[in-house]
Amino acid sequence: MFPGLWGSTSARRILWTASNIRGASRNAVSRLVHTSRSSRSVASLRALTPGLVITAGSIVAGTGLYYLTNFMMPLQPILNDSSSIEEPEPFPEGLKSTIPLREFDSVYDVVPGLRKDMPMREKMETLLKFYQQEIVAAIEQADSSGKAFIIDEWSRGEGLGGGITRVFQDGRVFEKGGVNFSAIYGSLPTAAVQRMKANHKDIQIPENGKLPFYACGLSLVIHPRHYLAPSVHMNYRYFETRNEDGTPQAWWFGGGQDLSPMYYNETDAVHFHKHLKDVCDHHDPTYYQRFKKWADEYFLIKFRGEARGIGGIFFDDLNDKEAEEHFLFVADALSRFLPSYLPAVRRAYEPSNEPRPTPEEGKHWQGLRRGRYVEFNLAVDRGTSFGLQTPGSRVESILMTLPKNASWEYNYHPNPGSLEAKTVEVLKNPKDYV
Amino acid sequence: MFPGLWGSTSARRILWTASNIRGASRNAVSRLVHTSRSSRSVASLRALTPGLVITAGSIVAGTGLYYLTNFMMPLQPILNDSSSIEEPEPFPEGLKSTIPLREFDSVYDVVPGLRKDMPMREKMETLLKFYQQEIVAAIEQADSSGKAFIIDEWSRGEGLGGGITRVFQDGRVFEKGGVNFSAIYGSLPTAAVQRMKANHKDIQIPENGKLPFYACGLSLVIHPRHYLAPSVHMNYRYFETRNEDGTPQAWWFGGGQDLSPMYYNETDAVHFHKHLKDVCDHHDPTYYQRFKKWADEYFLIKFRGEARGIGGIFFDDLNDKEAEEHFLFVADALSRFLPSYLPAVRRAYEPSNEPRPTPEEGKHWQGLRRGRYVEFNLAVDRGTSFGLQTPGSRVESILMTLPKNASWEYNYHPNPGSLEAKTVEVLKNPKDYV
Repeated sequence: MFPGLWGSTSARRILWTASNIRGASRNAVSRLVHTSRSSRSVASLRALTPGLVITAGSIVAGTGLYYLTNFMMPLQPILNDSSSIEEPEPFPEGLKSTIPLREFDSVYDVVPGLRKDMPMREKMETLLKFYQQEIVAAIEQADSSGKAFIIDEWSRGEGLGGGITRVFQDGRVFEKGGVNFSAIYGSLPTAAVQRMKANHKDIQIPENGKLPFYACGLSLVIHPRHYLAPSVHMNYRYFETRNEDGTPQAWWFGGGQDLSPMYYNETDAVHFHKHLKDVCDHHDPTYYQRFKKWADEYFLIKFRGEARGIGGIFFDDLNDKEAEEHFLFVADALSRFLPSYLPAVRRAYEPSNEPRPTPEEGKHWQGLRRGRYVEFNLAVDRGTSFGLQTPGSRVESILMTLPKNASWEYNYHPNPGSLEAKTVEVLKNPKDYV
Repeated sequence: MFPGLWGSTSARRILWTASNIRGASRNAVSRLVHTSRSSRSVASLRALTPGLVITAGSIVAGTGLYYLTNFMMPLQPILNDSSSIEEPEPFPEGLKSTIPLREFDSVYDVVPGLRKDMPMREKMETLLKFYQQEIVAAIEQADSSGKAFIIDEWSRGEGLGGGITRVFQDGRVFEKGGVNFSAIYGSLPTAAVQRMKANHKDIQIPENGKLPFYACGLSLVIHPRHYLAPSVHMNYRYFETRNEDGTPQAWWFGGGQDLSPMYYNETDAVHFHKHLKDVCDHHDPTYYQRFKKWADEYFLIKFRGEARGIGGIFFDDLNDKEAEEHFLFVADALSRFLPSYLPAVRRAYEPSNEPRPTPEEGKHWQGLRRGRYVEFNLAVDRGTSFGLQTPGSRVESILMTLPKNASWEYNYHPNPGSLEAKTVEVLKNPKDYV
């Protein structure tokens, strides 16, 4: 912009000053974003910053009061009030690396120790434990704090199974989360068997009324710290009823995953659903439509008439093909979990020219949305309720799904037209994303 | 202590100074309590304060750093660190007045407009609305902030009943609470009728399977702000099934109240139970024992093996005497609610020589205990679940029972021997208080 000056000392000094000021004005800009939600001026300034040279502008910084006077920006006083202004979040290093997107490789090439000739129970356990480790490692890396998941291995007693609970708390990017593996041997009371028989004709009720079963699953819930980053849930499981000699009788697969943004973001929602559709379409052209609808019905807080998030897929009692086919479907779904989710967390820290809430608004709303998440998990979710009612179940592993903090306010309704109201609108009217 | 000085001017000046210093040293004492939890020195100082004259001591106050140097107290530096030291809570004016304790006066003398010859529905509605107003007024006064309960009157539509929801939020003493009256006309589906018939033989199922019913109740939950003040719940209700011509068929009373301290305090627990026993004994010598046991069973977070509080009384399907007898019992219980509860809130602000948590410990633990309260209400409580499943029910009135904030941490266990651990011990092993 000032070619005649590039070579001179004073020009270098000007450039040095300008780059310092650029940092300062960026700070001020972030403050502006948070304070006024005005985003267009930010977008236009960002477009200019790569080669920013301050010309007719100057920055005056007093104690607690900043003025940014520049011909590119209107004069705007910004009060240093800690309740409404926060330093912009620095970008977490661990979120920078791209999530590797595997093609649909053969799971037998991807998962060490997995063999085609294993019984399905063993296959599923090997698969689920592999993805538990992979997801734990990726979340730790993305958290960028050096914090690690704790490990709780637990047993229900000789021959009754147990699990590996991995829990993360108070990280930098992630506030709370768990990735739990369990494999349980037990016996179902008659009432539960009767309910199951409705969907599984081949179930034989033994004379003593108690039906031996085996169930294994990987359950995941992640609650990030940032109010712009969505919470996510994933669960894949395999169920077998067993003859008295231990051989499998009826069997089925179940699972799904869903995304719960505090603030609806179309890019995130489309990205998440696109991955799920890819996985589904790779196995059965009817899957995505059926399982997306099932998720919309399942992840609904019925008494609120409001979904807990933007859905995903959900399926249960899946046994209409060869078990191996269903197994490969679950394996592909697991392989796509990280790339389907982590970009939405990264986006929360990236600059955006879309309207965003202030940190104060964001945190307040995040608390209320987490209240709704708790309502779903404790008062609606059949999985949680089944777990809590199962004698000898491990309550802490089941309830690791709850967020660190949740809040409730009587009859709270966001202002019409606000970002919060737009989110509720989507939650009350599930959309098609792909 | 220094009788020779009483009459002189300098002595009066010393006394004036001493009384000022007394205020200052009390502040410092409160800081000490919060910082060190050492309570004995506080107790001994309090015993001395009524006639306190500073003799060989002096108080030096710097910015952010206080030294209390007095022969009565060890030299102890107190850092003005806001994370561990808080200003002592000033005593809320509104909690000073004593709660009037009525004798068991005739409810017909106490409640305006109530007459013996009214149908029971009308009697109960008049009674419940009267105590709703009385309790709301007392809570507002105790809150000392001038804040008022909001009023939401709602209707389920012509002939279907409705209610008056009164909710309080963000007061000085009380963080969140509701005192809700409702009177509902509806019809029960066959399955619900079948369940009820087990306890009520006189229920006749109409040919269309749907049984008309009437239910009214007063439901209260209060969550104070202070971690030393217990939450409380109360509910009294009346249920009628009705013949097709509208005349009552089967009827019964239900209700109860329970106290949920974050920190177990024996004085509060005994006081609460003493009032309940008085009320019970006034009507039936078997009530207290039966209803206390019922409360211990009902207010249990089953999957935790932990009560949500120190219990109280609970009863349902009460119809083994004349309806009038049960009505008078409920009226007496309602009349004793305020004096049974408010002293426990007041005690949170009073100095004490018992060990107390720091504000930081207290607030953290309060969040977790409120998490447990949410677990009970959403995953265990039959009343909440019945309400949420009733079509057309008013969700916001049902869920006003939830605290403003609740938190969850994976597998959190308080340190053995801590105040928190002692509380859990009581919650896992219900005691007899009177």
